[in-house]
Amino acid sequence: MDLSPAEVRYQCRQGTFHFPTPGIASGFLQANLVILPKKMAFDFLVFCTRNPKPCPLLDVTEVGNPEPEIVASGADLRTDLPRYHIFRHGELQQEVADISHIWQDDFVGFLVGCSFSFEAALMDAGIPVRHLQEGKNVPMYKTNIACKTAGDFSAPMVVSMRPLSPSDVIRAVQITSRFSKAHGTPIHFGSPEEIGITNLDAPDFGEAVTIAEGEIPVFWACGVTTQIAILQAKPEIAITHAPGYMFVTDVKDDYFTW
Amino acid sequence: MDLSPAEVRYQCRQGTFHFPTPGIASGFLQANLVILPKKMAFDFLVFCTRNPKPCPLLDVTEVGNPEPEIVASGADLRTDLPRYHIFRHGELQQEVADISHIWQDDFVGFLVGCSFSFEAALMDAGIPVRHLQEGKNVPMYKTNIACKTAGDFSAPMVVSMRPLSPSDVIRAVQITSRFSKAHGTPIHFGSPEEIGITNLDAPDFGEAVTIAEGEIPVFWACGVTTQIAILQAKPEIAITHAPGYMFVTDVKDDYFTW
Repeated sequence: MDLSPAEVRYQCRQGTFHFPTPGIASGFLQANLVILPKKMAFDFLVFCTRNPKPCPLLDVTEVGNPEPEIVASGADLRTDLPRYHIFRHGELQQEVADISHIWQDDFVGFLVGCSFSFEAALMDAGIPVRHLQEGKNVPMYKTNIACKTAGDFSAPMVVSMRPLSPSDVIRAVQITSRFSKAHGTPIHFGSPEEIGITNLDAPDFGEAVTIAEGEIPVFWACGVTTQIAILQAKPEIAITHAPGYMFVTDVKDDYFTW
Repeated sequence: MDLSPAEVRYQCRQGTFHFPTPGIASGFLQANLVILPKKMAFDFLVFCTRNPKPCPLLDVTEVGNPEPEIVASGADLRTDLPRYHIFRHGELQQEVADISHIWQDDFVGFLVGCSFSFEAALMDAGIPVRHLQEGKNVPMYKTNIACKTAGDFSAPMVVSMRPLSPSDVIRAVQITSRFSKAHGTPIHFGSPEEIGITNLDAPDFGEAVTIAEGEIPVFWACGVTTQIAILQAKPEIAITHAPGYMFVTDVKDDYFTW
């Protein structure tokens, strides 16, 4: 049986949920997590504001408060994700299941929308989602599209890819239009070279998937862009979710649509 | 002949454009302006992020730089609006046509979407926009809907009102759905009392308009909310546009739609 968002978060807190979250708590928005000290928070918030396709903001916590009140009242960003990455000076140092021991009074938490959120809607419309069919993590690629910079934060846009038939591309554009806080419409389809991707079989993150005869690769902006921005800004400390192990919110997929 | 956005801004800079901007440079996004010192900027940015219906962010400038590069490359926020309000410690002190003399190196400029931007689309669809028909500023009201607070920033949501027939209400919901950066869909229609408005003939800002037999008052979130938030936060200094005298951007009304 599918878990509710609160159940997923409770199991994470208890230390009994260790899994990637695609397909979990179907119909609810999932989120990328970024935690930064207050002194870096303004520039990062401007970075997200300037790059809403890869970095659609769902919630920003009060300084020092680990509760994302808007999208998951009562939740705790220190314990309620299955897996975290700890970066120091722009280098990944540790993968952990709980960050309570290193939480600081000046930490600000950012939750950024995730494309997993529209996959249920694609499947409901009869559109195959290849990486789910093949039991894999979605393939993600760095592109040659530069995000707009803000202070020390800059990054090439990272995209996720799903192969679709032409008629499904059209329907997928319609459907994902409704999910503006989950990256919205694709940013490109067809030739990967045009956006600087040389080999679809070698994704920078996640796993390659089968592209069938007649299918077109379709590219959506991806929240992993935020992690590249952190690598480049090299903050003293930054904490993110581990890719694929997202924060599950209490708000429905299309909550932010208007 | 209708002016282009660049022409409007040039005439403001030359001191020859002194008019309210509704209906000017039709088809281009207009924006509310808020300028704050850097030390207040993070909290204000969080306030906008938490309240995207009244405060849809179009652009945030680099600290000390008066150019809004995303929505109007080459423009200058110090000179390119027809009229400014200067607030000190939360009190309106002065109305001026140029703020070059008080610009500070730590100023951050915020541009927030404006409902004037969707009025051209309503009129194109044959929907009457009463305050334009009557040559008035749009009527705006404080409501009993509390915005989400952020640091020292809090405010009741301010709304603008347009009276429409039931069939036009339906069509207006469809049309304004496309303008998520210009307040998007209405937040209420019908009984004003339900959102704390006791007298439609006495708006808190702008001017009252005629409501014909059978018409329904329809309420959209309004960027003037940001000015209330400034009154309440009482920053040492803050500068905004004068209500109705907006910044005209180079981006089309539906640029931010996806």
